[in-house]
Amino acid sequence: MDALDPGVGPFAALLGVRRLAMREGRARFELTIGAQHLNPHGVVHGGAVYTLVDYAMGGAVTSGLGPGEQCATLEIKINYLAPVAEGVIAAEAWVVARTGRVAVVEARVHADGDRPVALATGSFYIQTRR
Amino acid sequence: MDALDPGVGPFAALLGVRRLAMREGRARFELTIGAQHLNPHGVVHGGAVYTLVDYAMGGAVTSGLGPGEQCATLEIKINYLAPVAEGVIAAEAWVVARTGRVAVVEARVHADGDRPVALATGSFYIQTRR
Amino acid sequence: MDALDPGVGPFAALLGVRRLAMREGRARFELTIGAQHLNPHGVVHGGAVYTLVDYAMGGAVTSGLGPGEQCATLEIKINYLAPVAEGVIAAEAWVVARTGRVAVVEARVHADGDRPVALATGSFYIQTRR
Amino acid sequence: MDALDPGVGPFAALLGVRRLAMREGRARFELTIGAQHLNPHGVVHGGAVYTLVDYAMGGAVTSGLGPGEQCATLEIKINYLAPVAEGVIAAEAWVVARTGRVAVVEARVHADGDRPVALATGSFYIQTRR
Repeated sequence: MDALDPGVGPFAALLGVRRLAMREGRARFELTIGAQHLNPHGVVHGGAVYTLVDYAMGGAVTSGLGPGEQCATLEIKINYLAPVAEGVIAAEAWVVARTGRVAVVEARVHADGDRPVALATGSFYIQTRR
Repeated sequence: MDALDPGVGPFAALLGVRRLAMREGRARFELTIGAQHLNPHGVVHGGAVYTLVDYAMGGAVTSGLGPGEQCATLEIKINYLAPVAEGVIAAEAWVVARTGRVAVVEARVHADGDRPVALATGSFYIQTRR
Repeated sequence: MDALDPGVGPFAALLGVRRLAMREGRARFELTIGAQHLNPHGVVHGGAVYTLVDYAMGGAVTSGLGPGEQCATLEIKINYLAPVAEGVIAAEAWVVARTGRVAVVEARVHADGDRPVALATGSFYIQTRR
Repeated sequence: MDALDPGVGPFAALLGVRRLAMREGRARFELTIGAQHLNPHGVVHGGAVYTLVDYAMGGAVTSGLGPGEQCATLEIKINYLAPVAEGVIAAEAWVVARTGRVAVVEARVHADGDRPVALATGSFYIQTRR
């Protein structure tokens, strides 16, 4: 699935975010770092890392929704563990619990397969489309 | 100051993030919403809102740094208050406290001047460039 | 209103948390620091400060509920600004937005009237009692 | 080690927090729920759960410190997964990364051995005692 995957939308296309997997409450999205993702210090901007997390979390929640349900991000907190300047970064997210209309999700971002870049926790609100 | 402001870097240019003000521990950044910022639901992706917050917080901290100091985001938590689909969104951030090597920052995002979109709190690490 | 106020419950009584005000989406709770609130470093334990915040936020949300509604904490993030070892600490909380079944709340903790101790943001889930 | 363990301090004694294990960047603390931990809804107050998390995280960080170092909580975010009304709750925490003077920590709280109650992420500042 590539960056033009219509399922992930225009902002994913702008950043080059790709959906790799999404099922049973887990999802994995990735991004190949380019010069356009960098901040003035020459490393990937935190907003690019966060965006990857938000997509992965949303994908994890969406994969477990019933017919007619959709989700929206309530809140995410991200902790950065190390800067990254090149290569591929991937975010893996999984739903930890769903109670009432809220799903709680965790995510990790790694670079080059196994180097920890960030961790995050978030809450998503699940509503029924009218 | 426009989106090509070299001071904000390539990722700000990709998104169209503009620096409006930055001094004495406060900063204001904004973004004119375009089709490229939207998620599949037709509203601005949370990652674009977060990116604006991260820039505003970093600007607020940077405005208070001494010579030879620079900062990096340790963590940010963002709560979304309402979706937004068009117009201009602006993030205002201010440093609440600096203790040791850590600055604590708050931010608010508004659309169309006064409609609340998101709030955030974060921590930045301040180091001395070698 | 004192620490034995039945409205705030047994845990508030254990800590000595007092409800000072609670109306129109705002609440203020306080605590007189005693030796029992300290950690091994001789300052108030972060859990005591957090508990005061949780009570103030819950009070702020509860003050705006309709008949038959009650709330539960979904998540709170607290940033500590400065340690405190004696005197009175007060938490003030206010509801920023309520959308669907979720209220977003901010809080500040001060010591001795005006010295900043902590800030926090949280989300509360509102349900209808059956 | 019991609730009067001098190493955990007066606030742990007030709540009945016990240190079970603490080494190599991990720690486990627990609490036997009593009537004094409850909120007005008859379940354990979120402040008691948070306090357990803060102790476990602090223990995990402390277990990896060098001579003359001590740590302080910068921030913790906790997401509640399910209420709990009786039995024993345990918090397990582990250091994920330490960069510069900041350690990033994760924690989970379980009831009755395996029922998820809460998850949390936090940052601790490490300083050298003078």
